[in-house]
Amino acid sequence: MSGADYRGGAAFVDGAFVPAADARIPLLDTGFTRSDATYDVVGVWGGGFFRLEDHLDRFERGCRELRLTLPLSRDQIREVLLELVRRAGLRDAYVEMICTRGVDTEGVRDPRRFVNRFYAFAIPFVWLLPPEQRESGMRAVITRTVQRISPGAVDPTVKNFHWGDLTRGLYEAFDRDARYPILLDAAGNVTEGAGYNVFALVEGRLLTPVAGALEGITRRTILELAAAEGIPAEAVELPADVFRRGTELFATTTAGGVMPITELDGEPVGAGGVGPVTARLRERYWELHSDPRYTTPVAHAAAARAPGA
Amino acid sequence: MSGADYRGGAAFVDGAFVPAADARIPLLDTGFTRSDATYDVVGVWGGGFFRLEDHLDRFERGCRELRLTLPLSRDQIREVLLELVRRAGLRDAYVEMICTRGVDTEGVRDPRRFVNRFYAFAIPFVWLLPPEQRESGMRAVITRTVQRISPGAVDPTVKNFHWGDLTRGLYEAFDRDARYPILLDAAGNVTEGAGYNVFALVEGRLLTPVAGALEGITRRTILELAAAEGIPAEAVELPADVFRRGTELFATTTAGGVMPITELDGEPVGAGGVGPVTARLRERYWELHSDPRYTTPVAHAAAARAPGA
Repeated sequence: MSGADYRGGAAFVDGAFVPAADARIPLLDTGFTRSDATYDVVGVWGGGFFRLEDHLDRFERGCRELRLTLPLSRDQIREVLLELVRRAGLRDAYVEMICTRGVDTEGVRDPRRFVNRFYAFAIPFVWLLPPEQRESGMRAVITRTVQRISPGAVDPTVKNFHWGDLTRGLYEAFDRDARYPILLDAAGNVTEGAGYNVFALVEGRLLTPVAGALEGITRRTILELAAAEGIPAEAVELPADVFRRGTELFATTTAGGVMPITELDGEPVGAGGVGPVTARLRERYWELHSDPRYTTPVAHAAAARAPGA
Repeated sequence: MSGADYRGGAAFVDGAFVPAADARIPLLDTGFTRSDATYDVVGVWGGGFFRLEDHLDRFERGCRELRLTLPLSRDQIREVLLELVRRAGLRDAYVEMICTRGVDTEGVRDPRRFVNRFYAFAIPFVWLLPPEQRESGMRAVITRTVQRISPGAVDPTVKNFHWGDLTRGLYEAFDRDARYPILLDAAGNVTEGAGYNVFALVEGRLLTPVAGALEGITRRTILELAAAEGIPAEAVELPADVFRRGTELFATTTAGGVMPITELDGEPVGAGGVGPVTARLRERYWELHSDPRYTTPVAHAAAARAPGA
């Protein structure tokens, strides 16, 4: 610990803990220069990780798909993540783990020979929709200038840093006096936004895109909660014009949970404000954060810290 | 200089020169975590940069397209690049300049507010095709499992680190006992490979894809040289089956120049070996590297170094 200030967040790089703001990776890591990496983000809420094992499952699957070999075991990764939150002293945190292909130390341009790397950090919880806007909701647009990278090129179910399309969407949203882009695929079906899945309540059915998007853990939680609440919900091919007919729209993400979309392309959604289905699912979503079946308390592992450390 | 060992290459990070192997960037730079960046690579050959101003033009255009603001002027960037090669003591070098969106220091997730960053490095010249294989040529495949990211999602003319599709292609090539993938677009037209443009000599005409690929400086040089040599050359929509009919195929890149493709999908190309048009253009390409109209000598700027520095 030795006096390092972790209050702005903690990071884990090359086997050592450092303040997040000081954390640095090699300029020549192909995780940067080729975006050859996968990652995952877990939320910590009220001192507990939410669905940590599901995030670890997805992260490990992503590594397998990209043929990356994690230098740490799953138990070691879990312990690093818990330790990051402890060091940062955070009750609510945004925790990210990353595996990169690593550096071409031999100059052979053969990624099979690089030593893969693991990085992680925990920072104060990131609200994709600021809390003061939780009732006014998201001003979203369906982008016209950019489409989502196709799964035939980059698999969106392997969480990745290929955000060029999403960033273009973000700038288009800004240009159109909005903040949250939603991208279509080449066929005109809705995919996802810049860090969030989307849902539409259409004629009483809750619909979310079945392809072209990350299979979000929050998305999955909402599908499970909808089933439990008796709301018909389904992952489908979702053309933009069907999505537009939604009487309620919302987005889901670890960085904020269920976020009502109250404006789309400059028009109010449905009756305006936060719809009853959205509100109910949001409430149930946060309730789950105190359900021990879904949470991994950070304090739990504190006993592992040596006295005086 | 103070004793730092730049022999493996030199880098420029946050305003300071460091050995390339020691160069590090912030873990939280969105150039990494969102691949929100553009870059360019220039070759240095026999002590001179090749077409440096053309590379700087393309790099500056890329920054404008992504709405990045370079923290250094063009003159400052040029001077940094020259100094990197001088420090590394390299006659032949691979020199890369990068501009990233930077760090979200305020936690606002609004990339318009981030301070953009500039990084650069010079390392020993990278041969995409090892010199000992310059006559045996490239064993290439047209990929079956992955297609190129579409320009509607990410503009390939703005040089970027979105290599997920190219890396998938690379692994497919390895799996098929080859080394060099060539990716198609969704319509089945040839685009480019993992760091190189491609050309096919079809019925006496030299063809290269008109869209879906980087507008490479080496590609441009070859189109100019073909014109000068009286070889009909054109950028066209290039279906895979037309490409396959090429009696000569080659790839072009700063990291190696003109590289003959002698095998495609396990079959020999044309009459086998390096074809006469490929050989001629390759020869002319390297001749240009001693043409003062195309070169910027590194030694030239050495006078700018203060005595004793």
